[in-house]
Amino acid sequence: MTMTTLDGVDVVVHDAAAAQPAAARASRDERARWLRAVADGLDAARDELVAVAMRETHLPQPRLEGEVARTTGQLRLFADVILEGSFLEAIIDHADPTAAPPRPDLRRWLVPVGTVAVYAASNFPFAFSVAGGDTASALAAGCSVVVKAHPGHEVTSRRTAEVVSGALRAASAPDGVFGLVEGFDAGVALVEHPAVDAGAFTGSLRGGRALADRAAARPRPIPFYGELGSLNPVVVTHAADARRGSELAAGFAGSFTLGVGQFCTKPGIVFVPTGSRLAEALPDAVGREAMPMLTEGIASGYTAGTARLGAVEGVSALVEPAGPGGPGVFRVSAEGFVASHEVLTEEVFGPATLLVTYDDERALHVALAVLPGSLTATIHSEDDDDRGALVGVLSAKAGRVLFSGWPTGVAVTWSQHHGGPWPATNTQHTSVGATAVRRFLRPLAYQDAPPDVLPAELRDDSTVPRRVDGVLVPGR
Amino acid sequence: MTMTTLDGVDVVVHDAAAAQPAAARASRDERARWLRAVADGLDAARDELVAVAMRETHLPQPRLEGEVARTTGQLRLFADVILEGSFLEAIIDHADPTAAPPRPDLRRWLVPVGTVAVYAASNFPFAFSVAGGDTASALAAGCSVVVKAHPGHEVTSRRTAEVVSGALRAASAPDGVFGLVEGFDAGVALVEHPAVDAGAFTGSLRGGRALADRAAARPRPIPFYGELGSLNPVVVTHAADARRGSELAAGFAGSFTLGVGQFCTKPGIVFVPTGSRLAEALPDAVGREAMPMLTEGIASGYTAGTARLGAVEGVSALVEPAGPGGPGVFRVSAEGFVASHEVLTEEVFGPATLLVTYDDERALHVALAVLPGSLTATIHSEDDDDRGALVGVLSAKAGRVLFSGWPTGVAVTWSQHHGGPWPATNTQHTSVGATAVRRFLRPLAYQDAPPDVLPAELRDDSTVPRRVDGVLVPGR
Repeated sequence: MTMTTLDGVDVVVHDAAAAQPAAARASRDERARWLRAVADGLDAARDELVAVAMRETHLPQPRLEGEVARTTGQLRLFADVILEGSFLEAIIDHADPTAAPPRPDLRRWLVPVGTVAVYAASNFPFAFSVAGGDTASALAAGCSVVVKAHPGHEVTSRRTAEVVSGALRAASAPDGVFGLVEGFDAGVALVEHPAVDAGAFTGSLRGGRALADRAAARPRPIPFYGELGSLNPVVVTHAADARRGSELAAGFAGSFTLGVGQFCTKPGIVFVPTGSRLAEALPDAVGREAMPMLTEGIASGYTAGTARLGAVEGVSALVEPAGPGGPGVFRVSAEGFVASHEVLTEEVFGPATLLVTYDDERALHVALAVLPGSLTATIHSEDDDDRGALVGVLSAKAGRVLFSGWPTGVAVTWSQHHGGPWPATNTQHTSVGATAVRRFLRPLAYQDAPPDVLPAELRDDSTVPRRVDGVLVPGR
Repeated sequence: MTMTTLDGVDVVVHDAAAAQPAAARASRDERARWLRAVADGLDAARDELVAVAMRETHLPQPRLEGEVARTTGQLRLFADVILEGSFLEAIIDHADPTAAPPRPDLRRWLVPVGTVAVYAASNFPFAFSVAGGDTASALAAGCSVVVKAHPGHEVTSRRTAEVVSGALRAASAPDGVFGLVEGFDAGVALVEHPAVDAGAFTGSLRGGRALADRAAARPRPIPFYGELGSLNPVVVTHAADARRGSELAAGFAGSFTLGVGQFCTKPGIVFVPTGSRLAEALPDAVGREAMPMLTEGIASGYTAGTARLGAVEGVSALVEPAGPGGPGVFRVSAEGFVASHEVLTEEVFGPATLLVTYDDERALHVALAVLPGSLTATIHSEDDDDRGALVGVLSAKAGRVLFSGWPTGVAVTWSQHHGGPWPATNTQHTSVGATAVRRFLRPLAYQDAPPDVLPAELRDDSTVPRRVDGVLVPGR
């Protein structure tokens, strides 16, 4: 494995920090052009990148081709987002000399935070990696980016970085605005580097927490956006199970084994009525084949995690994993779950899931109360179910609440929220969708500024969506 | 001094946490009514509250009366903000079955984070205290609030809390949605309490950092919004000094001694040309009288701070403080400032300021480069000055950049930003103005939700400002 030396990290960070003011000064048109150039470059290199990634991650070709499309789609969405301009949150309040006290002319917008360290994830070698959503949203914001590559796909990372750098150069982006470092020590040095202004991470709770703690303990603390771990609870009501239990079993089996269960939105815990049709149908719906996992570390972690689950008192295996990467289905009563919830709510990364069987609403709610925060929570119910209390509890536990679907598959849209109460994420922001750009911006207000000093977006002839003297004005 | 016992803190926090779901469920109309009821209650109790606060803080009656008006104005602004509805950031994306992959119906808005701990400031016994901006914005968001009173004005705090509680009760807000605790240990217990979901603090760098560190080190870290310390640099160009140096001296003297210099936006460092008219005129413009400070601790801190400044090599006193609370003006060359910048950039809370004299632009920029982040930065220039570089540097160092004014006086408006790079604040949010409410909200998305489950603001007949399928729609 290649490691960037600490001197090497220093050079990359200083180049990025030196490039950042120029990136910030660039117009939104220019930055949109950079993002689209990167997207075009990745599309052009798709076949080569996918071939490398297949060797490194054992993920199948269609999945990886789809992921490149998702990645370039993200870059183009952020280009649209910055051209549209609402993300600047522009607010103009004209002076009011008659107010008590008199009010000055005050104009606020958002400006880039500076240089961002992006920690790539193992499980999305494109969409949450070198040119993934964090990189795209930080560049869109006008930040410079230093990516810490994931060791699970280092050649893919390096080759992607070459494509990104080449495209940015060809599009006349400032030299050094994007860089790559490799190795564990480089990752630690990055979050502690005085010239780094924010961090973004997708990965394990342990790794993310360690980096977040370092970010908070710096002489100058910096924001650190971690997407850390998620159980993604699913609740199936008596009525839904009675009417479509076996259909749900098929959908569920597809969701928790998708991508060998290596998704942050994998449904890891499912609350079903005792004696459910779903549980009865599930073993037949789940394949038995062990599938290759992303890395050896992840495979051995999966083996250890499923062994840990299976060893808990009251837990039985409905489907015993046939080795690392083999689907595993475990079952426990709601009472048994509550008794051992500290162990049973630790995420097992991979195609394992836990059925929690409940007799009645009361037992269900007692069990839901001990759940930690998640990215998603899913409800399978019927229209005549009284689901108010369920929606209330799960809304408090998750960032996205789904109805009659499965949480894998995260649409990249204006409205998406990929985040949730601890430990799903450690901040009130999303890492997927248009609003992810907010993480890398800070407000700046100008008071009584001469018009020549103001950015075009804050002048009286601004064309971006803005609030003027309290009233929303759509963009031109 | 009264101290809340740890058991007492536990009771108050549990009451607040128990009340929070009802606060979150309350309509925006209801919450706006609560805020206005609190404002009305404070207005009615103004004379009594001001009399108590005069005794405790030594601040003059007109200032305190103005501050009560500011406080009730803030509460009413947040009522307007939540009724207007943009703060919900509502986004509706309808399903698109033709997209690849097909897109679900996805609707996002912001929901309250939970129970908020508010740490009151010493220097604004009303506007940044028990019923101040943090409390108002958290209640507006639908959070419950536990205030840690400042010991500098404990009777004022207790009496204000009674008015707030009484008004909330009369307006049918949930019991326990607002509470007060007192004492250092109670403040520490609060930020570490498992049922507290966020913190907001205005005060010293040391105190705020200690609490922020505890918030980050919890088993479940929580967001902690600290407004911690600020030098508020001012730059006077050669041209501005030549044309209006003595006029600037008068304005500057008024600003840094206002409220006995006990403002977070006090101009603590001013860059002036060597041999400036401003420096020449300043001693005559500054009063000599020592004024009573907020607390004995602040007064002794001021004495120590001015002694520390005066002892630095190359620093001379233009105006020597006549005891605690006496204005102090110090002077150092730009070169001397750079050499001792670690000591000279420590905030001295009170009516002290430092003139840094520069010969040319180069010396000025070398000196500006070592400045830490501030809430504000101010430029006094003439229209024919080439101020692009100056604006660039100061925009990177501050959250509000002012032209031809003074930073004391913080308008409470939609566009205000009261925050800035570390150590001014530790997050990318404001504690003053309409957008302060964002600190206490988190996104929540609903996927394919039946309309009866959705809040009115996210249904197709929503009346709040929102984005629908990518297009901004103004509120009804």
